[in-house]
Amino acid sequence: MSIEITKDFLSALADCIREQNSKQAHEMLADLHPADIAEFFPDLDLEEQSFLMSLMDNEVSAAVLLELEEDDRKKLLKLLSPKEIAEELINEMDTDDAADIISELSESQKDEVIAQLEDKEHAQDIVDLLRYDEDSAGGLMRKEFVKVNKNWNVLTAVREMRKQAEDLEEVYSIYVVDDDNVLLGTLSLKKLLTTSSNTKLEEVYNKNVHFVKADDENENVAKVIQKYDLMEIPVVDELNRLLGIITVDDVIDVMKEEADEDYQLAAGITRNVDADDSIWTLTKARLPWLLIGMFGGLCAASIIGGFSTALQNFPILLLFVPLIQSTAGNVGIQSSAIIVQGLANGTIKDGVWKLLWKEFLLGLLNGLGIAIIVLFFSHFWFGTPYLVSATICLALVTVIIIAATIGTFIPLFLEKRGLDPAVSTGPFITTSNDIFGVFIYFMIAKMILGF
Amino acid sequence: MSIEITKDFLSALADCIREQNSKQAHEMLADLHPADIAEFFPDLDLEEQSFLMSLMDNEVSAAVLLELEEDDRKKLLKLLSPKEIAEELINEMDTDDAADIISELSESQKDEVIAQLEDKEHAQDIVDLLRYDEDSAGGLMRKEFVKVNKNWNVLTAVREMRKQAEDLEEVYSIYVVDDDNVLLGTLSLKKLLTTSSNTKLEEVYNKNVHFVKADDENENVAKVIQKYDLMEIPVVDELNRLLGIITVDDVIDVMKEEADEDYQLAAGITRNVDADDSIWTLTKARLPWLLIGMFGGLCAASIIGGFSTALQNFPILLLFVPLIQSTAGNVGIQSSAIIVQGLANGTIKDGVWKLLWKEFLLGLLNGLGIAIIVLFFSHFWFGTPYLVSATICLALVTVIIIAATIGTFIPLFLEKRGLDPAVSTGPFITTSNDIFGVFIYFMIAKMILGF
Repeated sequence: MSIEITKDFLSALADCIREQNSKQAHEMLADLHPADIAEFFPDLDLEEQSFLMSLMDNEVSAAVLLELEEDDRKKLLKLLSPKEIAEELINEMDTDDAADIISELSESQKDEVIAQLEDKEHAQDIVDLLRYDEDSAGGLMRKEFVKVNKNWNVLTAVREMRKQAEDLEEVYSIYVVDDDNVLLGTLSLKKLLTTSSNTKLEEVYNKNVHFVKADDENENVAKVIQKYDLMEIPVVDELNRLLGIITVDDVIDVMKEEADEDYQLAAGITRNVDADDSIWTLTKARLPWLLIGMFGGLCAASIIGGFSTALQNFPILLLFVPLIQSTAGNVGIQSSAIIVQGLANGTIKDGVWKLLWKEFLLGLLNGLGIAIIVLFFSHFWFGTPYLVSATICLALVTVIIIAATIGTFIPLFLEKRGLDPAVSTGPFITTSNDIFGVFIYFMIAKMILGF
Repeated sequence: MSIEITKDFLSALADCIREQNSKQAHEMLADLHPADIAEFFPDLDLEEQSFLMSLMDNEVSAAVLLELEEDDRKKLLKLLSPKEIAEELINEMDTDDAADIISELSESQKDEVIAQLEDKEHAQDIVDLLRYDEDSAGGLMRKEFVKVNKNWNVLTAVREMRKQAEDLEEVYSIYVVDDDNVLLGTLSLKKLLTTSSNTKLEEVYNKNVHFVKADDENENVAKVIQKYDLMEIPVVDELNRLLGIITVDDVIDVMKEEADEDYQLAAGITRNVDADDSIWTLTKARLPWLLIGMFGGLCAASIIGGFSTALQNFPILLLFVPLIQSTAGNVGIQSSAIIVQGLANGTIKDGVWKLLWKEFLLGLLNGLGIAIIVLFFSHFWFGTPYLVSATICLALVTVIIIAATIGTFIPLFLEKRGLDPAVSTGPFITTSNDIFGVFIYFMIAKMILGF
């Protein structure tokens, strides 16, 4: 019931395009979901894409357009006049999607496209939505929903619902408001189907409704939807008046984007990139952290350089620099990742001091364990003198404890200052640990070995 | 319309519990969503939890139980008899949740609880679900859904739907099957409300339905739901017979868990832990990678040791070990993270060789950029001899290129072998880079400086 996109299919389609065989190409696309079409679309050149777009029903081409990456979409839209964009595409979209697409256009194009919209109500809804920050609940919401007045009875509600639902793809919830459009609750379709016709809605609607304010952050919307297992959530203004709804599919996209971003930050990538992006885009995303890491490495070199004359007596200390450094890095990343994730999921309930104390104990425990193994190797394998072994082990324990507490503290501190704690993972921790790890190591060496 | 859980609220609730004031405690809980109750529940001791559970309606206590972490849930369930578990909790749950809870019980408890279930149909559905792997579509699905026969007319369908929907919280889709229970399509509630009563379903149902097989992996289910923006998806057996449905809220939990797991793997944490877990649990999750990192560090020490007599002529080379090492680590993590994410999102379309070639070019570009800056510093700041500077720069470029290609290759290789590419990020890359980074550095030094 859903068609597999095979290589054979794609090459047959390519043949159709080459022969400009509109009829067969149209048939081949007919059974595909827009999301499937959007998947192979970027592999075609612009002319081919435009040929296929012209074959599809407006509804389908609008949906395909929405599924494309922004870059690919922009290229296609450049080929169309404002009138075509308005009538063939925007006209077919839900208000939230329409607003997203329009906000991607240039200022002049924006106005022209809006002016070309024939359905004035649709146009007004879209313009309303353009006001909201794209990262807020208002930026996610749509104006397509069914609302009923608490004073109506079931019969009137069903009739009204049929009227309102005409343009809607699907209805999951019906929102109940008072005469001032203040959100009061919801009415399930099931209830509507199973209650006698002359019952007043007042008596049957569900007063426990979760909602968000239009200026709530979209991450917050995602949390509420996830926590209460909702399919959609209504959006209200400061006076609790119903403005729109947000559906779970849009929220899933927000969650996915957020998770991807945090993952990339932890890996030292500063902007959202794909493996398929150009070398230049990838370099812009990757070079910043590499440069910061480089300066960290140069700082570490300076520190070692500062001790170098003294080190001539104990050159063996230098062998263990990579060990100290990588252990500090690994511990720091583990600690910060746990805190960053805990903050994102809202699972951290302990206070700062309790968390730091726990990390201290954890560092001590892990540090001692590792130090004992290292002691064994440094003595039997490398044959280091006792005092040097003691230096290495003490430095390991100290560095691990400090890396663990810093890894815990920094994200908590950033969160407190209203900054994104996710930036403090990955290379940030590695780089800072490169510097202080090496420094602590040699300071302890100086104390114990007295150079 | 939703109550904020404040500290005042919690301390007032604690007072009620202390005074065993059932009436007031019951009132305080009445307006809370089970998800809110579950949030502060773990902060109470077991006796207090059990007191509150006894006050709640069965429906609410069952929902709270489902929202708790597995550990907390198990402790509470230990206080109850199989009869209580069956009648007061399992009885109130949807089949998918019921099966999840029962599968957490010990073998003997399992049978006793199932034997105590009075609703035989419910019990049978649960037992059916217990057969499926918890990471498969079958393990996620529920048996609560509405299905209609294609030969019925709209009137019959509405009547049947009302009957079937009696036990359902909410209905989003109606599934159309033939006489053999083979899934044919869906019927929207909206359609049902807007079609005349004597129309046969055959004529109005939607044949384009996405579905999954019962043994599909749950990650795959999440991908399909996300791609096609679905609210729920039907699950079928090998003969396309309808077995159950999966709703989007369960899929969101799967996605969240998966993202958390990948993030933790990238940070070198081997099992799902929270900041609030015990030190012992955290150590078990963190020590394995620290030990692997430690052996990497010891290997690096051996390599440096192998060159040590030769290094006496050029001790300045040792200053730059942290630089080489951290740069290799950062590049490797970036490369592997991009590939791991691309594989997870299915956005990688290029072949292995093209990806490796791109990483090679990227490494060359970034490597040259960084090498030039380092050359400047090593010359003017550290005053290194020309040949040593040349060694450092050549080593940097080489190490960056190799780290980038290895970071790209390993996750692709793991994916090809059917292993989880996410394990190849974080400390895995750091550790392997510690070893070969140092080795390459000194080999190049040996070639250029001829020691």
